[in-house]
Amino acid sequence: MENEQENKLEKMRHSASHILAHAVLKLYPEAKLGIGPAIEDGFYYDFDLPQPLEEKDLKGIEEEMRKIVKRKLQIKQLLMKRSDAIKYLRDIGQEYKLELLEEIPDKETSFYVSGDNEFVDLCRGPHIENTGQIGPFKLLRTAGAYWRGDETKKMLTRIYGTAFETKEELKDYLQKLEDAEKYNHRKLGKQLKLFAIIPEIGQGLPIWLPRGYVIRRILEDYMLVLERNHGYQHIFSPNIYKEDVFRMSGHLEFYKDSMYAPIKVDDENYYLKPMNCPAGMMVYKLEPRSYRDLPFKLGEFGTVYRFEKSGELHGLQRVRGFTQNDAHLFCTSEQLEDVLNETLDLLDIFYKDVGFTKYKFRLSLADWERDSKKYSGDVEKWEFAESVLRKVLQDRKLEFEEMPGDAAFYGPKIDVQAINIYGKEDSISTLQLDFNFPEKFDITYIDEDGQEKQPYVIHRALIGSFERFFAFLIEHHSGDFPLWLAPDQVTVIPISDKHKKYATEVFELLKSSDIRVKLDDRSKSMQSKIRDAEKLKIPYLVILGDKEVETDTVSVRSRLNKEIGLMKKQEFLDYLKEEIRLKKT
Amino acid sequence: MENEQENKLEKMRHSASHILAHAVLKLYPEAKLGIGPAIEDGFYYDFDLPQPLEEKDLKGIEEEMRKIVKRKLQIKQLLMKRSDAIKYLRDIGQEYKLELLEEIPDKETSFYVSGDNEFVDLCRGPHIENTGQIGPFKLLRTAGAYWRGDETKKMLTRIYGTAFETKEELKDYLQKLEDAEKYNHRKLGKQLKLFAIIPEIGQGLPIWLPRGYVIRRILEDYMLVLERNHGYQHIFSPNIYKEDVFRMSGHLEFYKDSMYAPIKVDDENYYLKPMNCPAGMMVYKLEPRSYRDLPFKLGEFGTVYRFEKSGELHGLQRVRGFTQNDAHLFCTSEQLEDVLNETLDLLDIFYKDVGFTKYKFRLSLADWERDSKKYSGDVEKWEFAESVLRKVLQDRKLEFEEMPGDAAFYGPKIDVQAINIYGKEDSISTLQLDFNFPEKFDITYIDEDGQEKQPYVIHRALIGSFERFFAFLIEHHSGDFPLWLAPDQVTVIPISDKHKKYATEVFELLKSSDIRVKLDDRSKSMQSKIRDAEKLKIPYLVILGDKEVETDTVSVRSRLNKEIGLMKKQEFLDYLKEEIRLKKT
Repeated sequence: MENEQENKLEKMRHSASHILAHAVLKLYPEAKLGIGPAIEDGFYYDFDLPQPLEEKDLKGIEEEMRKIVKRKLQIKQLLMKRSDAIKYLRDIGQEYKLELLEEIPDKETSFYVSGDNEFVDLCRGPHIENTGQIGPFKLLRTAGAYWRGDETKKMLTRIYGTAFETKEELKDYLQKLEDAEKYNHRKLGKQLKLFAIIPEIGQGLPIWLPRGYVIRRILEDYMLVLERNHGYQHIFSPNIYKEDVFRMSGHLEFYKDSMYAPIKVDDENYYLKPMNCPAGMMVYKLEPRSYRDLPFKLGEFGTVYRFEKSGELHGLQRVRGFTQNDAHLFCTSEQLEDVLNETLDLLDIFYKDVGFTKYKFRLSLADWERDSKKYSGDVEKWEFAESVLRKVLQDRKLEFEEMPGDAAFYGPKIDVQAINIYGKEDSISTLQLDFNFPEKFDITYIDEDGQEKQPYVIHRALIGSFERFFAFLIEHHSGDFPLWLAPDQVTVIPISDKHKKYATEVFELLKSSDIRVKLDDRSKSMQSKIRDAEKLKIPYLVILGDKEVETDTVSVRSRLNKEIGLMKKQEFLDYLKEEIRLKKT
Repeated sequence: MENEQENKLEKMRHSASHILAHAVLKLYPEAKLGIGPAIEDGFYYDFDLPQPLEEKDLKGIEEEMRKIVKRKLQIKQLLMKRSDAIKYLRDIGQEYKLELLEEIPDKETSFYVSGDNEFVDLCRGPHIENTGQIGPFKLLRTAGAYWRGDETKKMLTRIYGTAFETKEELKDYLQKLEDAEKYNHRKLGKQLKLFAIIPEIGQGLPIWLPRGYVIRRILEDYMLVLERNHGYQHIFSPNIYKEDVFRMSGHLEFYKDSMYAPIKVDDENYYLKPMNCPAGMMVYKLEPRSYRDLPFKLGEFGTVYRFEKSGELHGLQRVRGFTQNDAHLFCTSEQLEDVLNETLDLLDIFYKDVGFTKYKFRLSLADWERDSKKYSGDVEKWEFAESVLRKVLQDRKLEFEEMPGDAAFYGPKIDVQAINIYGKEDSISTLQLDFNFPEKFDITYIDEDGQEKQPYVIHRALIGSFERFFAFLIEHHSGDFPLWLAPDQVTVIPISDKHKKYATEVFELLKSSDIRVKLDDRSKSMQSKIRDAEKLKIPYLVILGDKEVETDTVSVRSRLNKEIGLMKKQEFLDYLKEEIRLKKT
């Protein structure tokens, strides 16, 4: 029943895309049509036009669509012989459709016709019976889209729209879209001055602005302390490594597509590092290691560069340069369970402290039956590692999904999928076993019995990349960061000039206690100062007038809990410190 | 008189280099000779040999030299006609000398001959009269050196040696060399596990090892707090920028030789950034700025890459990738003096805290008379800026040297030269005015009168680069870092297993108070644990045995002040905290 409903909606949206194309051809007869399917939340159609369409053009197209709908034009299937179809498409100059036709081997080709040959489109259907059966619809936005998703081909204009059975459903959906904008990290990143992507510097290469960098640095320090308290040590390695080490690691063999072109220096090739692993392995090898040194935990905040197609870049979520909170853990087989448990402990602490409550686990395993040659390292080691991974998840009573065959060739892994505010999963953290690097880099330790053995190696990143994590964090909190992370925690606002002295006193008290506080003593109205602070989503505003000066108190407004009221200065400071100490979210 | 003495010493050393070449030819008749001058502390000679010479070969060569010295061979000048000289050098197959001869246009060519044509060398002289007049000498080391310093040419073996008038002078010099080794940051970097340069990753691309990274992070945090307290904001920008911004900045025009080859991405060129300035300028331009926003102080710990010839790379001092503690200050002309003063205040605080006491200032100015076309920006602005720079140095009663003509084309600057432990000057910090970028990037602010004006822009780096600074810091302290910077501050050593429990208690007390403490509970002798800690130059050792357990005390040994003696636990903790708080050096 539900499926039938869905099919009906899909059919109607597909027809809506035909009406869209019909309208565009009426307004821009020179338009060449690409494809126009129904999609999850609506439909789209791609057009090749001398001038790309913009948001402002959508209103006119919508009006034209409405006219077509009103006319209740019949939509009928028309079968043509292949040779006739080719001739027809050539005659009307629809070259993209011709290209599509090349891939349809059938002798008879299906077209759909609206009205009296007014609009004819190569299409398998099905469609509604006439254009009047379209529900309430709306065009949403335009975007650039390469023909067939291939960036060597021409960039077309894609128009997105949606249609529903009822006005209420459409209204709800549009409201949901509007709400989502409140969480959009790109919008908030700009409004809150957290980061910027500057075209002259490069797409996919975000710059952390001062307010964003404050948060990044807090997260870095937090992670350093957390990891050091658990026996991690940290290194810092360069952003380019010589070719030699990428040959050793196998990156040049298996990962080259994600790497940038080499830079030649003194006849040697250097590459922007796409991963920090080679330095981790080489530092392990600097000294002979013994069982007494294990588990050996080596972290790095490593800034790496990976190629992404420009069409796939998205804010901080999909970038070309990012910094991982990376670590490589070396341990014996006996230590593996403890090491994995400790890593999941750190994850719990971290997720709680940043306010993430909804997350799931995914266990990617080998599938030896399907492809036994795919995997590096021996079967027993894999099976042992997989059983330990599974046991750890089970013992912790965690909800997890097993994905046989999803493991990379070098080892099984646990992915942590946080649920974003749109209800979708985002992979934040990874715990990846590696059976490849210990071989490639000849990673060993001397065991108690004097024998040289190979340790287990785990790559892990709790924060994943600071960039992607930050995108998630911004959206999760809609920019209202927990106090311990807020770039500015308090703004002090004197009501008039005569309150400035007292305001400075309050400001100094907070500042000397390491509260990130601003004093807004500009000659502006109190209301406009409050508006400015609210635009930046500053958690606490302290308003100081006659009453506060007289009673040596502060009037506190909390963004999320609104008015808190009068407090003694020290009381307010203690209140802030407690909220920070508890990392309240 | 002193000059005469110096000339005499130089002549003798020059002759010593001939004796060295003479000896090498006796032992390796196939050797081709490069050049062999006297230098500041001795002499060298370059040789092309089928097999490069090594340190172990020096003993044999010294013996051969001693034989030549004993024979008191006469050294005489021999003048040859140019054509004869060419023929002669061709006959004996000395191709490098032939190349040198090409650049000597004189009709008569000067050679020097030792003994009965035993050793003949193309040379202007002067020399001592016979090989017996050579003072006490010593060969020091071998090194690779490109012919004519050109890395496209062949790598020769250079042998360094020295010679003095008296045995005492030679002995003193060799002692000085040995002492200097104690300070050598490359040696200490290895011994103290501070950093590593790993050939497979790349020359000139140091990796900060865990103990070094602890110090780096402390310095970063220190600088962040210091700068934030003085109104700085910080950004973080990528390591590659697009070509566009380097065209805007003029780097591609004026700085290309120090930049690495571009990386092509989607038909656009990206460069490893050699400087952070472009991002600083672009971030300033993100919003319209007003006089109320000035002075605007924008900092970045920016990791940059600059090309250096491989022969010139040296430990952490001369590298290809390094991180600057960079900042760009934007201010009005009225603010310039205060901004410069504040920067020098920060410098004073910083130098004092890291224990640098000896430093000088150098003021690089324009020389309009000599080259008026060299300089960017107008004369009045330059002259005003130079006068302010001079006034600030004078008002602070600082010792400084004026260097007219030494300013770069874009502005005058102050360099801070610290005096290293070898008595030589190292440039650590720079304060550079810039009249070029405000033009190129169209940097402006709206003044009180509503007019758009150009601010003054100052680049400054107090720490300079973390790498070069760290080299200086290691050598300055000979690896005995001030307690606040020491990677491990305390090692706790239980004398035997029965003291482990108490040792753990002491360890936990210190750890919970943020002391960087290690517990050495390995089953090794106390003496060997002490040796291990001393090798790492750990400032404090706490030794715990029966007496300490009974009296609830700790026995403290300080590396630099030796035995401190028995203390209550809390007393020791307070003692450490005070030393850290005061940043004692």
